[in-house]
Amino acid sequence: MTRMTILTEAELRRIVPLDREAVACVENAFHALATKAVAMPPILRLDIPEHRGEVDVKTAYVPGLDSFAIKISPGFFDNPKLGLPSTNGMMVLLSSRTGLVEALLLDNGYLTDVRTAAAGAVAARHLAREDAAVAMIFGAGMQAGLQLEALTLVRPIREARLWARDKGKAEAAARALTGRLAIPVRAETDPEAAVDGADIIVTTTPSDIPVLRAEWLQPGQHVTAMGSDAEHKIELDPRAMTRALYVADSLKQTRRLGELHHAIAAGLVAPEAEFAELGQVIAGLRPGRTKADDITIADLTGTGIQDTAIATLAFARASAAGAGTTFES
Amino acid sequence: MTRMTILTEAELRRIVPLDREAVACVENAFHALATKAVAMPPILRLDIPEHRGEVDVKTAYVPGLDSFAIKISPGFFDNPKLGLPSTNGMMVLLSSRTGLVEALLLDNGYLTDVRTAAAGAVAARHLAREDAAVAMIFGAGMQAGLQLEALTLVRPIREARLWARDKGKAEAAARALTGRLAIPVRAETDPEAAVDGADIIVTTTPSDIPVLRAEWLQPGQHVTAMGSDAEHKIELDPRAMTRALYVADSLKQTRRLGELHHAIAAGLVAPEAEFAELGQVIAGLRPGRTKADDITIADLTGTGIQDTAIATLAFARASAAGAGTTFES
Repeated sequence: MTRMTILTEAELRRIVPLDREAVACVENAFHALATKAVAMPPILRLDIPEHRGEVDVKTAYVPGLDSFAIKISPGFFDNPKLGLPSTNGMMVLLSSRTGLVEALLLDNGYLTDVRTAAAGAVAARHLAREDAAVAMIFGAGMQAGLQLEALTLVRPIREARLWARDKGKAEAAARALTGRLAIPVRAETDPEAAVDGADIIVTTTPSDIPVLRAEWLQPGQHVTAMGSDAEHKIELDPRAMTRALYVADSLKQTRRLGELHHAIAAGLVAPEAEFAELGQVIAGLRPGRTKADDITIADLTGTGIQDTAIATLAFARASAAGAGTTFES
Repeated sequence: MTRMTILTEAELRRIVPLDREAVACVENAFHALATKAVAMPPILRLDIPEHRGEVDVKTAYVPGLDSFAIKISPGFFDNPKLGLPSTNGMMVLLSSRTGLVEALLLDNGYLTDVRTAAAGAVAARHLAREDAAVAMIFGAGMQAGLQLEALTLVRPIREARLWARDKGKAEAAARALTGRLAIPVRAETDPEAAVDGADIIVTTTPSDIPVLRAEWLQPGQHVTAMGSDAEHKIELDPRAMTRALYVADSLKQTRRLGELHHAIAAGLVAPEAEFAELGQVIAGLRPGRTKADDITIADLTGTGIQDTAIATLAFARASAAGAGTTFES
């Protein structure tokens, strides 16, 4: 018999908010990626073209953590027609020692949202200027808000601008975030004006054409591009990569997905060019920002270590709080 | 909110015994593999060498099936020291149309046992002589018994022999199977004598040296090798492949795992040599046995389509019987 804990989305939302500990746990995972024998196999990907569906399965083992997560992330893009969200999913947490299932985290993708936003905070903490106070967000979806919220945990953000293709959505998101984060968030109609004077820029769109032009970038700015997690997606003008200090979450992944591979495809960057990874910057193994007027870019495609980190935190907190349903099989 | 059914091992054992319908559902899946646009990505594999652990994740989408399974199979080989089984695991069943989780099958590996044995029955049905009556099993573990039981579903088996390295285990298994299957099952001490006169031979060992020598094979015999599911495992003398009609469950896999890759490594078979797959034989696209004195070999390494097939059957039966626990998240 295996005894496991089942946690629902509602329970997980309660016990794993986007907070400093969530950011720290994702930071530790990136640190481990650079310094320990982390095992992170390539993503398993299944496509179901008949229903415009795809499923990614990610996992990673971080030495020192008692558990590791296997995350199942379906994306079915006709779901909205059926009144269902496009993305979804769950995580299975297994013991690193025995392989037994410890917990089923029925999060419907919530923990992915948190760990993705937490990675944005980690990138800003290690690459943005200490005094970064003005944030600019591309996109008006759920990650737009979470990324901004994450920035407020690590930098003294006092003002934010937001741009999205859909003006109405941008305005609604700006209003909601102004209320939620207690800082002024303004929807801008001109993305170039919105970028002008921002200290941190985060792109959170599903775009397949660049939304941020290279010539808009100003000395001292930090950019986190987190929307591109598939080959065809792109948010940054590839020339931006040649103007900035570029840092990948996983170079192996960003050479294939993310922003870097578009710069490689455009012939602007050599396929095997070496860049720092976020974990190496955290661990002090590679330099990040060296002076106030550097332009830095963090290219985040999402990694299995983040899933293992957040799932392990969720299980620890659930155990401490006695949360969840115990199930035996 | 997602509504899903959770099924325990005990419930799954009750509603999915090894029966003709289980064999038929696995047969249909192999048929689909040969005739439809099945999606079966490479296995995701994570190794945790510190704890002699490994996890395989398999999946496959079979067009026409409402659901597809993602199977998580951990193997942690120090577990027996802790009083725990080495292998374990569960399946997640998702809707092919929406990607929503439909069921969590907490089977601790039971469904894998059933679908693996069912594949042995499918191989025998399509490759062994119709009148095959004498079975010979290498191994004394759980699959040894299930493979023999599976043969009795598709061929008029009236006698069986069993050989295992551990004599005591072989005798205990033979006694138990004689009782369970109501046919005489004899433990043999000499594997060559046990093979002599057998119609169907099934190898179910974890061996890393061949247990069945090529020169023991006799005209008319059928061999199913199902123990080798990793690069280093081998059960058949590679020269057997040159004496027999060889059929793979998945040629892509058996060129890498299973018995074929050892024959390729030994230079006995060209790396790109074409062989029939079981599904092609079932669908009539490639010949199987053409005459009574052919020697046939089925090389079974285990495929994601079998998991999707058995999990879909389990969910259909559970739904019809109202079995399981409904969970919302």
